[in-house]
Amino acid sequence: MTLKVETLRWREGALELVDQRRLPLDFAYVRCSSAAQTAEAIRDMVVRGAPAIGCAAAYGLAVEALRLEHLAPAEFFAQMDEAAALLAASRPTAVNLFWAIARMRRCVETARPAAAPSAIAAALLGQAHAIRDEDIAANRALGAHGAALIEDGARVLTHCNAGALATAGHGTALGVIRSAVEGGKRVRVFVDETRPFLQGARLTAWELLEDGIPATLIADVAAGYLMRCGEIDAVIVGTDRVAANGDVANKIGTYPLAVLARRHGIPFYVACPISTLDLELASGEQIPIEERSASEVTGFGDVRWAPPRIAVRNPAFDVTPADLVTALITERGVIEHPDEARIRAFARQE
Amino acid sequence: MTLKVETLRWREGALELVDQRRLPLDFAYVRCSSAAQTAEAIRDMVVRGAPAIGCAAAYGLAVEALRLEHLAPAEFFAQMDEAAALLAASRPTAVNLFWAIARMRRCVETARPAAAPSAIAAALLGQAHAIRDEDIAANRALGAHGAALIEDGARVLTHCNAGALATAGHGTALGVIRSAVEGGKRVRVFVDETRPFLQGARLTAWELLEDGIPATLIADVAAGYLMRCGEIDAVIVGTDRVAANGDVANKIGTYPLAVLARRHGIPFYVACPISTLDLELASGEQIPIEERSASEVTGFGDVRWAPPRIAVRNPAFDVTPADLVTALITERGVIEHPDEARIRAFARQE
Repeated sequence: MTLKVETLRWREGALELVDQRRLPLDFAYVRCSSAAQTAEAIRDMVVRGAPAIGCAAAYGLAVEALRLEHLAPAEFFAQMDEAAALLAASRPTAVNLFWAIARMRRCVETARPAAAPSAIAAALLGQAHAIRDEDIAANRALGAHGAALIEDGARVLTHCNAGALATAGHGTALGVIRSAVEGGKRVRVFVDETRPFLQGARLTAWELLEDGIPATLIADVAAGYLMRCGEIDAVIVGTDRVAANGDVANKIGTYPLAVLARRHGIPFYVACPISTLDLELASGEQIPIEERSASEVTGFGDVRWAPPRIAVRNPAFDVTPADLVTALITERGVIEHPDEARIRAFARQE
Repeated sequence: MTLKVETLRWREGALELVDQRRLPLDFAYVRCSSAAQTAEAIRDMVVRGAPAIGCAAAYGLAVEALRLEHLAPAEFFAQMDEAAALLAASRPTAVNLFWAIARMRRCVETARPAAAPSAIAAALLGQAHAIRDEDIAANRALGAHGAALIEDGARVLTHCNAGALATAGHGTALGVIRSAVEGGKRVRVFVDETRPFLQGARLTAWELLEDGIPATLIADVAAGYLMRCGEIDAVIVGTDRVAANGDVANKIGTYPLAVLARRHGIPFYVACPISTLDLELASGEQIPIEERSASEVTGFGDVRWAPPRIAVRNPAFDVTPADLVTALITERGVIEHPDEARIRAFARQE
């Protein structure tokens, strides 16, 4: 059971991205033939979700290398540096973006002494395909580890979209649910609508309907009520960056869910591919939190409902302290009660 | 400093209500010339907010009595009973509705032995005016008591609309803020947008802009982040019903704010006119929670963004246990750390 849609795909020499701003009412791909177009697609949230952003950035560098492969090496490398900087500036919070760019740059450095730009471009495209394929494989492994934590009949609350649309496929938080369902467990998913960008109402609800997994949409404000009524058995979310001490940055509204889950004795799980761990940051306090446009809060799409001239704050992420996290679920296994010692020991295992 | 708009007004023999579904983009009154029209206006949320609903129901019975005053007494009283039942069925959670209807019925019973229907109708209209005037006076007294709890420079978070638009005037939670500002204190209000009906984004933001009180709109999900960043000094909300043990029913999303406020050591105040106390209910568990239409969650107004066929839960209220409430603010004073003993002692003081 995996969503049949390809969130990212390589077609006729370019990257194609499902336009997630238009789902679920329209389904269309946006074509990116340069790093600049890819950076714009990331910034404008054509593609979103930390792992998908990482994959898109990798393809963005590959498509740029193909575009520039006719240049002399010096010019080629200079423009590739600019492209990497442009992509790195597209969004600040998801670490997978920087992880993917760094990996692509290492690929360039490795090939550089001997290879012509055209050979490097080919190597970069191969590397982007590898990042995509590894992401899907990691999500399947992560899903299998996480599925063991989900009981038959569980009612699971999720926030935002950590699904196939947030990754190259299968999803992280929704990957755990998909794997549990594949394993024969009955699961009902409560889907936070996730204001202001409504990734839950638009993307998670759509993915779960497409896959036939029972789903109930709620306003974000209703999660506490349902927990108090005993209607939620577990919370599972994705993440954009996890610091070395286990603090979790994720979509705004995640932290309140973790606080509520703790009050009600409900396990709070974070689906976290290894590429989302940022061991260079000591704690979540150091994770940059993106503030997005006021227009996301004063309405939706072309519709406005708040009075003109009202001031707005629109932080796109929050940080959940590690002590509220029951477990991090990775593709290499589960880190229970994450803290710095456990996370560093886990990272060294490989 | 009080919003110049009359939320409810009596004009040419009928009740007129600001159509709060259309604010802030349009400003118009809806005219109610019968109890049925008034009940429909309450159900459809032309008027909302517990005290305003109570006032509207009182006027609804007055306008019905005027409409029926030509009838013979037996028929008049029978139809007035039906009108009271119709209004009582319009919404389930706000106790002020039942309180106002009961008060109007006592007025009928008192006048009944001697008076003709026309005299009773006149008495009912006088009673409705009294309920309106008492509401405004109570909110001003409540505001004065509450203002003492707000420090100069405070950043106060509120949820939904407990403003002039939720009452006959001045407001309860916003009344406290208005009174603090009148007293020379500088206050910035953080306004939860309050999905799904967006009373915060539409009504509270509009009221505060009209009065020139600094206000910042946020998505509901951002409150926890702002508290964690130390940007919120107090939370103040209204209420639809407070049980004898101090449990507070209010707009869905209030309970999560109370849990977050407790975690961050932020005072959590509930502005509660005496008419909102329901001493007949032992605890909040017994307060009926209205579930409203799925269409409120799958979009807003005529706009849809969730996929068709998605299941929805839409509870309109939640219950905050008394132990999370720092104080109830009433027109007769402040009840700190409310519990059954303190509330019953306070109610006996009169």
